[in-house]
Amino acid sequence: MTGGKEPPMGKIVLDMSMSLDGFITGPEDDESNGLGVDGERLHAWLAEGNDDPQTYRPSGPSGDIFDELMATGAVLVGRRTFDIAGRWNGDHHDGVPIFVPTHRPPADNPFERVHYVTEGIAECVRQAKAAAGDRDVMLHGAYTAQEALKAGVLDGIELQLRPVLLGQGRRLFDGLSPEHIELELVRTLEAQGTLHLRYDVRH
Amino acid sequence: MTGGKEPPMGKIVLDMSMSLDGFITGPEDDESNGLGVDGERLHAWLAEGNDDPQTYRPSGPSGDIFDELMATGAVLVGRRTFDIAGRWNGDHHDGVPIFVPTHRPPADNPFERVHYVTEGIAECVRQAKAAAGDRDVMLHGAYTAQEALKAGVLDGIELQLRPVLLGQGRRLFDGLSPEHIELELVRTLEAQGTLHLRYDVRH
Repeated sequence: MTGGKEPPMGKIVLDMSMSLDGFITGPEDDESNGLGVDGERLHAWLAEGNDDPQTYRPSGPSGDIFDELMATGAVLVGRRTFDIAGRWNGDHHDGVPIFVPTHRPPADNPFERVHYVTEGIAECVRQAKAAAGDRDVMLHGAYTAQEALKAGVLDGIELQLRPVLLGQGRRLFDGLSPEHIELELVRTLEAQGTLHLRYDVRH
Repeated sequence: MTGGKEPPMGKIVLDMSMSLDGFITGPEDDESNGLGVDGERLHAWLAEGNDDPQTYRPSGPSGDIFDELMATGAVLVGRRTFDIAGRWNGDHHDGVPIFVPTHRPPADNPFERVHYVTEGIAECVRQAKAAAGDRDVMLHGAYTAQEALKAGVLDGIELQLRPVLLGQGRRLFDGLSPEHIELELVRTLEAQGTLHLRYDVRH
């Protein structure tokens, strides 16, 4: 770089499927049932109009959202979500690096592209953004999203708002401080059974 | 009625302004501050583009929603919300009747159009619908909405989804049972600072 200009940098965007009452799992979610009782239905939008068992890609507008998510250059995921998902066998999509903020990294990490970061959420976000370059970073996990919001390092929120009241489960937005976090709705996309909402977080 | 046909009947529709994290008040809401700390901002959509201090009607798409709400033929409101709102001096809009489900009606009720119903939420809904005729009934109040949902007597939900995370306060959807309540998104309307979402409740 000789021009003194910073290279363009992507954003870090929370990506979650949420019920209208704010849940991202059903009740009793644990390692044997990561999405809780009947929670898998939140993710059913991935199968809409999809006749190809080899891919998760849904048809219609949801397919565009799916493509966008799959174009991210890194994944930042909470330790709990990561472990429950079987660590995706070390590859979430296309071999992009995966960053996991944690206080207790495992003694053994067999996955070259998986990075445990112990210096806190802000540093974890910094490393993930640096690795993604000009592409966005996908963030997964409710607790980790809350930590990123509290630290002021989350740039955007991509929600798949599902038309159901789950009643019980794990909430996406919980335990935040009473200081309001301002958002801007920048995209609304209606698909069958899912409303895709994109918010920018105002810093 | 000689034709044996039932007269057309309106629906009962929950109407609330909610933050993206599901709150309908800020923290510490009480009689002196019904919307809690900074909670009044949830209702700021009513003032958008409104230069006429004599009316609450906002401009643009929000004005259409406002007109629709003001065309309802009865109001069903939780006792807490009703009292905090100063009982609207007995008239929410256009003198339509107001129904309040309660276990302890006040000894004195100076308002001719206000009806306290002690026979439960389902009976209260029945009376409000009968009074509204072919017009809809507007329902206000989180706890009462939850009771109506649990009893299976709520027909629709009209949300003003506001682009903010309040962090703390009173949740609209809380304490529901784990049996899922199915919804259908039937209208999406984007207005400045507010996303209007209309859901039908599937019975």
